[in-house]
Amino acid sequence: MTQPAPAEAGMAIDEIDTPALVVDLAAYERNLARMAERLADTNVRLRPHAKTHKSPIIGLDQIAHGAIGVCCQKVGEAEVMVEGGVRDVMVSNQVVGPRKIARLAALARHARVSVCVDDAGNVADLGAAAEAFASEIDVLVEIEVGMGRCGVPAGEPAVRLAKVVDATERLNFAGLQAYHGAAQHIRGHGDRRAAVDSAAALTRETVGLLAAAGLDCAVKAGGGTGSLEFDLEAGVLNELQAGSYVFMDADYGRNLDAGGEHWQPFENSLFVRATVISAPTPTRRVTDAGLKALAFDSGLPLVDGLDGVTYQGPSDEHGTLALADGATLALGEAVMLIPGHCDPTVNLYDWYVGVRGDVVERVWPVAARGRLA
Amino acid sequence: MTQPAPAEAGMAIDEIDTPALVVDLAAYERNLARMAERLADTNVRLRPHAKTHKSPIIGLDQIAHGAIGVCCQKVGEAEVMVEGGVRDVMVSNQVVGPRKIARLAALARHARVSVCVDDAGNVADLGAAAEAFASEIDVLVEIEVGMGRCGVPAGEPAVRLAKVVDATERLNFAGLQAYHGAAQHIRGHGDRRAAVDSAAALTRETVGLLAAAGLDCAVKAGGGTGSLEFDLEAGVLNELQAGSYVFMDADYGRNLDAGGEHWQPFENSLFVRATVISAPTPTRRVTDAGLKALAFDSGLPLVDGLDGVTYQGPSDEHGTLALADGATLALGEAVMLIPGHCDPTVNLYDWYVGVRGDVVERVWPVAARGRLA
Repeated sequence: MTQPAPAEAGMAIDEIDTPALVVDLAAYERNLARMAERLADTNVRLRPHAKTHKSPIIGLDQIAHGAIGVCCQKVGEAEVMVEGGVRDVMVSNQVVGPRKIARLAALARHARVSVCVDDAGNVADLGAAAEAFASEIDVLVEIEVGMGRCGVPAGEPAVRLAKVVDATERLNFAGLQAYHGAAQHIRGHGDRRAAVDSAAALTRETVGLLAAAGLDCAVKAGGGTGSLEFDLEAGVLNELQAGSYVFMDADYGRNLDAGGEHWQPFENSLFVRATVISAPTPTRRVTDAGLKALAFDSGLPLVDGLDGVTYQGPSDEHGTLALADGATLALGEAVMLIPGHCDPTVNLYDWYVGVRGDVVERVWPVAARGRLA
Repeated sequence: MTQPAPAEAGMAIDEIDTPALVVDLAAYERNLARMAERLADTNVRLRPHAKTHKSPIIGLDQIAHGAIGVCCQKVGEAEVMVEGGVRDVMVSNQVVGPRKIARLAALARHARVSVCVDDAGNVADLGAAAEAFASEIDVLVEIEVGMGRCGVPAGEPAVRLAKVVDATERLNFAGLQAYHGAAQHIRGHGDRRAAVDSAAALTRETVGLLAAAGLDCAVKAGGGTGSLEFDLEAGVLNELQAGSYVFMDADYGRNLDAGGEHWQPFENSLFVRATVISAPTPTRRVTDAGLKALAFDSGLPLVDGLDGVTYQGPSDEHGTLALADGATLALGEAVMLIPGHCDPTVNLYDWYVGVRGDVVERVWPVAARGRLA
């Protein structure tokens, strides 16, 4: 159910009702610009992952900064993106079942739509639906490059499936999806590079086999924020699916760069604003942001800009903070928390509250929040 | 944002779009009846926790089975309950900040409203708001009984705060809130009893001190599904706040009973229905239910009714299943997952799909989904 917005434009930041999802607009805009600069002199396109933000408004900002379109994980997310004005959407996932496949094929009449496959029967189902709607769908064959999730094995099995796609009316074989999600969060710089290089080698080999079979692999898609520099070095992917770079999260800050320092090429622009609702002891504070206000799968949130204050742990609706010697935080005061993992945190909210300095400038919907299907 | 409902009444269960939150209505109704039976010959009232289900429809079902009202954790949840016809709502939490306090005091004109406090300044703020709205609010003093979260210490500090409440116009000192949330999930039967007994002793002592100070402690509130039998034995609490009993979850099944067996006095009635979207190897299946479809803070979900199939782990939108030798599960087939923790799982969905046998009978909103503030 859509919940009341926690703020409106023109309010002071202190007037935001909490818990609320707050975007530092200046930092967000710098992240958009930084990614555009990074890719400017490459032949690599950006198709950022909208599963991070679930907002066509942000998708259109990314496109204004050079992205060619967006990725989604669900048909429902793709529908929301197209409703919001995005004209080129890839579902970087398998779409299974007659209702969802029909929705995808219908959507393909109103936007450029691509999807991933790892099963020949699924290819037939997609082709039949595209035929029924007289639409065309670009299809990428997903290969398994180290993540242990979906995808056919790289090499000949991928070529066999690409031939099936190529032989199906109204489906266009567009290329390979080669996403190594697990590589994004490998802490060590060298280990992260090795995982990416291994995925790149499998992809390169498969592209060669496709060419030998007369199939043009126009799109080599994959990558994420954590593997960006290595994906560019490896030089195999030509369409990157980074999503987290717009917001960043606490977990990405735990990755290490080449010098062993915390890796932070983009800025934290996403925060959960929470209020202290109890101050029961000198060293304990309890906030209104717990398991329903933050995702904890990738560790605890960080407390922004307050020395000596750490988030100790959540219960359903509470988050407990520990105060070190000398730290102060009064009942009713607000804290800004950097989520451990931005994607599932965003999915808990209906509204982004965009602030510039201490003023609320824009409140906009997390339009695909909860769009699971 | 409110999402499209995944089913409608009359559909076959196989037609439900996934992922979806499914309630086995017969099991749910047996849970309601079982709790009513259990409390029938006691002097203990039930005020179930609506943070579990976030649905006034379920709250009214509970009231029809003898509950005196519901609890909530947030003012917004309380508003949704009152909008949905519940006339007696306790916010079993601290309410801090002028906007939220004003909403609480306004709501108290339209329903019986109670709230918990652990700070004298907060009591003054509540009193001023009740004065402004010419409403009356019942106030419970929350005591710390072992959870290490909110609450004043049991004993004299609680009496001092109760006196402040009692002296405040338009606030009625109603009793004590003595919730030991951590006790709910202590695995060992004896250890769980010891935690509850310790909380009960602190509560009993404080009730005695209140009486000595001339303050009637009408309500002794607390307890949960996991501590139900011990709360009843201890005989101190007269208002129980169990919530999970309507649904149960995988984690409660990990508690042990007196015989060392898995403790399951209520039935699992809540499921996440998911679909297999990839079958990349003979022993791996990938479903469409990951971190945005299930809560993982209390462990992995269980796969209902399928031998040899286990949920191995989530990523944002995927859940990987492992198949043991001989187990089969085809692409496109659905599985029913028992969530590790029902409360934050429910909060991810807009709709309950109620089924009886293999037929969808009722689809109703998770009306307070995302009502964080």
